[in-house]
Amino acid sequence: MEVPSILFSAVRCGIKAKGPDLGLVFFGDGMDWLAAYTRNRIKAAHILYNRRVRGPARALLVVSGCANAFTGKEGVEDLGLLSKRLSELLSIEEQSVLFASTGVIGKRLPMDKIMGALPSLVRGLSQGRLEAFADSIMTTDTRRKIVVREDGALRLLGVAKGAGMIDPRFATMLSFLFTDCAADRKALKPIFKEALKGSFERISVDGDLSPNDTVLFFFRRGDSIPMGLGDVLASVMRELAYLIVRDGEGRTKVVHVVVRGARRSSQAERIARRIARSPLVKTAFFGSDPNVGRIVAALGDAEVPFDPQRLEIMIGREIVVRDGKETRFDEEGVRGILQQEEFEVTIDLNHGKESFDIYTTDLSYEYVRINASYRS
Amino acid sequence: MEVPSILFSAVRCGIKAKGPDLGLVFFGDGMDWLAAYTRNRIKAAHILYNRRVRGPARALLVVSGCANAFTGKEGVEDLGLLSKRLSELLSIEEQSVLFASTGVIGKRLPMDKIMGALPSLVRGLSQGRLEAFADSIMTTDTRRKIVVREDGALRLLGVAKGAGMIDPRFATMLSFLFTDCAADRKALKPIFKEALKGSFERISVDGDLSPNDTVLFFFRRGDSIPMGLGDVLASVMRELAYLIVRDGEGRTKVVHVVVRGARRSSQAERIARRIARSPLVKTAFFGSDPNVGRIVAALGDAEVPFDPQRLEIMIGREIVVRDGKETRFDEEGVRGILQQEEFEVTIDLNHGKESFDIYTTDLSYEYVRINASYRS
Repeated sequence: MEVPSILFSAVRCGIKAKGPDLGLVFFGDGMDWLAAYTRNRIKAAHILYNRRVRGPARALLVVSGCANAFTGKEGVEDLGLLSKRLSELLSIEEQSVLFASTGVIGKRLPMDKIMGALPSLVRGLSQGRLEAFADSIMTTDTRRKIVVREDGALRLLGVAKGAGMIDPRFATMLSFLFTDCAADRKALKPIFKEALKGSFERISVDGDLSPNDTVLFFFRRGDSIPMGLGDVLASVMRELAYLIVRDGEGRTKVVHVVVRGARRSSQAERIARRIARSPLVKTAFFGSDPNVGRIVAALGDAEVPFDPQRLEIMIGREIVVRDGKETRFDEEGVRGILQQEEFEVTIDLNHGKESFDIYTTDLSYEYVRINASYRS
Repeated sequence: MEVPSILFSAVRCGIKAKGPDLGLVFFGDGMDWLAAYTRNRIKAAHILYNRRVRGPARALLVVSGCANAFTGKEGVEDLGLLSKRLSELLSIEEQSVLFASTGVIGKRLPMDKIMGALPSLVRGLSQGRLEAFADSIMTTDTRRKIVVREDGALRLLGVAKGAGMIDPRFATMLSFLFTDCAADRKALKPIFKEALKGSFERISVDGDLSPNDTVLFFFRRGDSIPMGLGDVLASVMRELAYLIVRDGEGRTKVVHVVVRGARRSSQAERIARRIARSPLVKTAFFGSDPNVGRIVAALGDAEVPFDPQRLEIMIGREIVVRDGKETRFDEEGVRGILQQEEFEVTIDLNHGKESFDIYTTDLSYEYVRINASYRS
């Protein structure tokens, strides 16, 4: 599926060890956009830069291999220089370029390499190069992440990168969403936020939050919300988020942790996140060990009040905790569930009606290998 | 060093795969005590039981291999039965036995095995069996943890177990401290709390909090505080805590994370703990990778306000971050520091005068192996 007014390009300028590392999107019309950025107190230079851009967006430049985070005001100034050059090459307003970056934290952008590659990057722009663009934003993701949806007149393209922090110091999830629908920004904002909550905020690989996390949603300026746009957006973002977990570092399993029966959804969320980041729970998942005690211990450490007597825990459809105790569950049966590549763990507090769910990975040898190896 | 009025014993009753798994301490005189227990909302049965014991303590029974946690009211009733039998065998008051346990969460105590072993456990009591007792409380600790101090008339024995959660479902740190000094309980309480803060609350192996964590300090009832007791207690507890980190699961390194220059010590603490539990920081330590960006990212995710421009980070004595940027530090030199078995990472926020420090381990293949392997 192509959108006539949106062009993509990618080249290699030599930041990453191999593959394309510079991606460009060009918008035939000025686009409106919504952004969501990391909650880390250290924010990458592109976040500080983008926040000052006011006019409609005409281009998005993505650098991969260098996060341009923790690089001081010089890191932001570098983007100003790139914006100036790009706007000349594209014959657009200077204040209409947005940026994103991912990679090693703490290093400045290699400006000579990037500047040198811009002309060929611009020459390569075409409707059909979405895949090349998606490849260029990967760091050590093992697969390209694209989701496209067409629903009547509604077309939405989604691209993402992320797998935890892959190569040492390579961080970050990035996601870009494009539609040529016209929509009212203000009305769209809460819909975008909801979609975020239901997608990228419900995945966890290692519980580490990068300074670069960025989601940008581009659309044409309009004065209403097209029918169905919210649903399509939510569904594309959910699928992209799922693709990121599927590609989680060293992952051998995807575990869907569902917490329900909470008094408040924030409490359900705290428990779900606590379980999803417990190294002991995650190593037990890796080993297919029906280690219910570790789930209970993580649960008890979530700083949420609950009555152990009412607690019910299921692995798949097998009840493993009830009435404040482990049940005499079928160990081999549960081990069989845990050996699947994907399964669900459900915690019911039986206190109320609120719930929260999250997708997480197991913790494997491969995770340690990926993250302990020297940068080459 | 022996304390005439304190006897120890240990036997194997067959809970663990091998080695002694039942330990007993008998006090010739009734002892006063102070206790500190886990903050996990799931509390092991021995914690619920001990809290109801009012009179002076005459004995302490420690079970290892079964945590007796998440076992409902039956788990507590089991301890009542053991107390009854033990007090008969020892000819002491029934309400004078305390308990601790460590091991698999969610399983009831094997009462027949324990009951059957009590007579020989009692027969074995002697002043000289502290080491046998220390061995009996280990689960898969790789070494015995005893610290003794004598300072004039002051004698203090400390014992601990803990290495994270070792065998799947084996959890818990336990520590017991004994002195025949007489001391005033009320006056001692804040001293004990301070010593806790400076010791067991400053270590982190995997950031998982067990339902069984227990520290018990036994002393004779008195009406003042003997000179020097506070210092000796603090020093013994600090050393025991350090022994636990040294024996951390799969540990190849011990890292001392020091945060200073904070406005409030609670903020310094939050940052220190956040860094100490980051899998990405810990795998970088394992790989001796001078990955400063990961430390910065973890720091930024601690939900503590700070000015990146003022931040200073040192690895050993090498300054790696200053003026809001990575310095051009000597990579090979820093790698050399990270290759040591023990080193310090210092974060200075340059905001205030408060500080906090914590000892943590690296995250290795061996950690994953230990925690992913099936229970045999």
